[in-house]
Amino acid sequence: MAPHAELTIDGLLSEITMLAHISEAEPPVVTRVVFGEADLRARAYVKSLCAAAGLIVTEDAVGNTFARWQGAEPDLAPVATGSHIDAIPNAGSYDGVVGVLGGLEAIRVLQKLGFKPRRSIELVIFTAEEPTRFGIGCLGSRMMANVLTPQQALALRDKEGRTLEERRASAGFTGALDSAALPSGRFHQFIELHIEQGPLLEAEGIDLGLVTHIAAPASLRIHIEGEGGHAGAKLMPGRKDALAAAAELILALESAAKSTGAIDTVATAGVCEVFPSAVNSIPSRVRLETDIRDIDGARRDSVLDALRAACAEVAARRGVTIATDLVNADPPTACDPAILAALEEAAVTAGRSHKKMVSRAYHDSLFMARIVPVAMLFIPCRGGISHRPDEYASPEWIASGVRVLATTLAKLAS
Amino acid sequence: MAPHAELTIDGLLSEITMLAHISEAEPPVVTRVVFGEADLRARAYVKSLCAAAGLIVTEDAVGNTFARWQGAEPDLAPVATGSHIDAIPNAGSYDGVVGVLGGLEAIRVLQKLGFKPRRSIELVIFTAEEPTRFGIGCLGSRMMANVLTPQQALALRDKEGRTLEERRASAGFTGALDSAALPSGRFHQFIELHIEQGPLLEAEGIDLGLVTHIAAPASLRIHIEGEGGHAGAKLMPGRKDALAAAAELILALESAAKSTGAIDTVATAGVCEVFPSAVNSIPSRVRLETDIRDIDGARRDSVLDALRAACAEVAARRGVTIATDLVNADPPTACDPAILAALEEAAVTAGRSHKKMVSRAYHDSLFMARIVPVAMLFIPCRGGISHRPDEYASPEWIASGVRVLATTLAKLAS
Repeated sequence: MAPHAELTIDGLLSEITMLAHISEAEPPVVTRVVFGEADLRARAYVKSLCAAAGLIVTEDAVGNTFARWQGAEPDLAPVATGSHIDAIPNAGSYDGVVGVLGGLEAIRVLQKLGFKPRRSIELVIFTAEEPTRFGIGCLGSRMMANVLTPQQALALRDKEGRTLEERRASAGFTGALDSAALPSGRFHQFIELHIEQGPLLEAEGIDLGLVTHIAAPASLRIHIEGEGGHAGAKLMPGRKDALAAAAELILALESAAKSTGAIDTVATAGVCEVFPSAVNSIPSRVRLETDIRDIDGARRDSVLDALRAACAEVAARRGVTIATDLVNADPPTACDPAILAALEEAAVTAGRSHKKMVSRAYHDSLFMARIVPVAMLFIPCRGGISHRPDEYASPEWIASGVRVLATTLAKLAS
Repeated sequence: MAPHAELTIDGLLSEITMLAHISEAEPPVVTRVVFGEADLRARAYVKSLCAAAGLIVTEDAVGNTFARWQGAEPDLAPVATGSHIDAIPNAGSYDGVVGVLGGLEAIRVLQKLGFKPRRSIELVIFTAEEPTRFGIGCLGSRMMANVLTPQQALALRDKEGRTLEERRASAGFTGALDSAALPSGRFHQFIELHIEQGPLLEAEGIDLGLVTHIAAPASLRIHIEGEGGHAGAKLMPGRKDALAAAAELILALESAAKSTGAIDTVATAGVCEVFPSAVNSIPSRVRLETDIRDIDGARRDSVLDALRAACAEVAARRGVTIATDLVNADPPTACDPAILAALEEAAVTAGRSHKKMVSRAYHDSLFMARIVPVAMLFIPCRGGISHRPDEYASPEWIASGVRVLATTLAKLAS
């Protein structure tokens, strides 16, 4: 089942463009925070496309969406593919979307070819892959894998102080939270098509990346409590400036990540919120959100330890209070050799160049791997740019990914 | 005219409490950003008190408010007193307010004593002493002194992108902007009663501070433009992290202020806004707002120069773009010896201890000094705390200030 000639990418490209226009920001800027108005409209759009393709659409208690192409033996566990459609503030059009709309396109290609799957093929759209609202990435797949328990989920709040319970209810998802955890054997295999979010494939002129390992993040929130006061009147020696303390931690984190000696270690302070945030007021409180990743869990945790040590040292020296909160620290994972072999065979058949590589970004596949054999298929993205409005994947790259995904799904579902 | 017995502080204290409850935040937190809803209600409340005291209330084109107790010779330039009622986010009840409601109380005390001023006595409530909305402090007095020209004022915008023109119009102030500049000789003398916003008077057990010099701020806005990207995928060596660059500047500023060797040099980075502000996204853009002060203008400017040099060095080393914008850099000023002598005589008559001191915070008096002889009278505040909800001045401290202010106004207006 090699869908060479039958793949017309034009329809898929317009769907990607349509979805990019469903955004909280002006195009080409994509912002779709989970359970926000744009996210809800985007869900409705994708579900309408799935329904038009004759798929059976269901949703779980947190909005994970399943669109099933019924197989000849519907009692067999389905082969699944999918990704996410939520987007961080000021993002682009391809992250996650290529795996959702490209996954749907792979199903439609097989339908046009007259392929009849034995196992059902199911498209999964995960809720809240991005951590923007609740501070934790891959919320939907974590709950499917029961890595995030209903009890832990009940404690989640967004910046406006609203709980996951409130947010999901106003988005229309009201089932019991524990129903989101999937029973053993719910899926047979899972493949996630995704842009690389790194520069390697494009730089080396390679069409496809077969992901062997997925790096995993540790995320530490840091709450610094200093002492405010008037910026003119309070003398330097007595100050407990929370932002100056934060500045030291930001630099300590950067330095710890650079000094592991491994190119695979990365660390970022992406959020720095200052209170009261007035030019003539000494910052009394700062909240930092940090993210540390590696494909080697122990090496990653050594950076986490260095950051925690810096918190203790800075707190003692500056007389500020620093509390930390480990939001997550998941183990890295390996992809399934059998699925990788099927992907490789499909790439060779399609005449596409490929390489084995690691994923430095993490994905829902990291958590799906707890409950089903997974693999990821990367396509290049221009300049390695992601999480920005100028994120871009060419029609050729997308077509290669969809073609190889379709061939592989057909093989696995036969 | 020594109003010893006649000063009943209870009414004034309830007025201060009433005003503190007119806030954008829950009491005891005071937030009154200029032209916001709470600021407008606070203005109405204070004007109603002035009207009840028989004062003639007028407003200029930017909302500076003048409440005149007509003197026997109304053609003479009035003696003036006053301060501001706007408040930064998360502030307290006394900053500015003591000079406005205390100034009004001084007038009412003299009225009760049957005093008949020869010169008019005028209470001034300045618009936007705090820089919260437009990023520039003492907007109203700058415009009175024509230090901020109408052309410069037209360029001001707040964070929501609204201009001063829009904001003042929707607050009901519509006259020509150039009418706010005061003609020469409009006032005869000006006295500002204020809490110290520093710890010295309370620590030394002294009732009153006679301010001889007012330190002046330089305020530099720093715009850092780096390169965003996915926090997991982008390797450390290629990064242009705008927040890491900002962290270096925050620490460079602190270090430059500490190394002048003078206790009077202070510097603060009070605002640090990060874009896009997502835990898994490398910061692409940061806006810092900094504030540097000294009673010695040249020493202050040496810190400003050090900060600018750090901007250039960090930009070159990290490959980010750093643009700076000098919002203001006003010269320090000296208070008028004749007014100081009158204040001192009144303090001695009232049996109040006093000391000469400098003001490290700046005030509308800094700009009024360009067009009229000024002096400032400080009362203690607990722990030197200001710009915080726990800012506090005792009834005794306030009563001392009002009493000495009243005696001095009576003398100057006779």
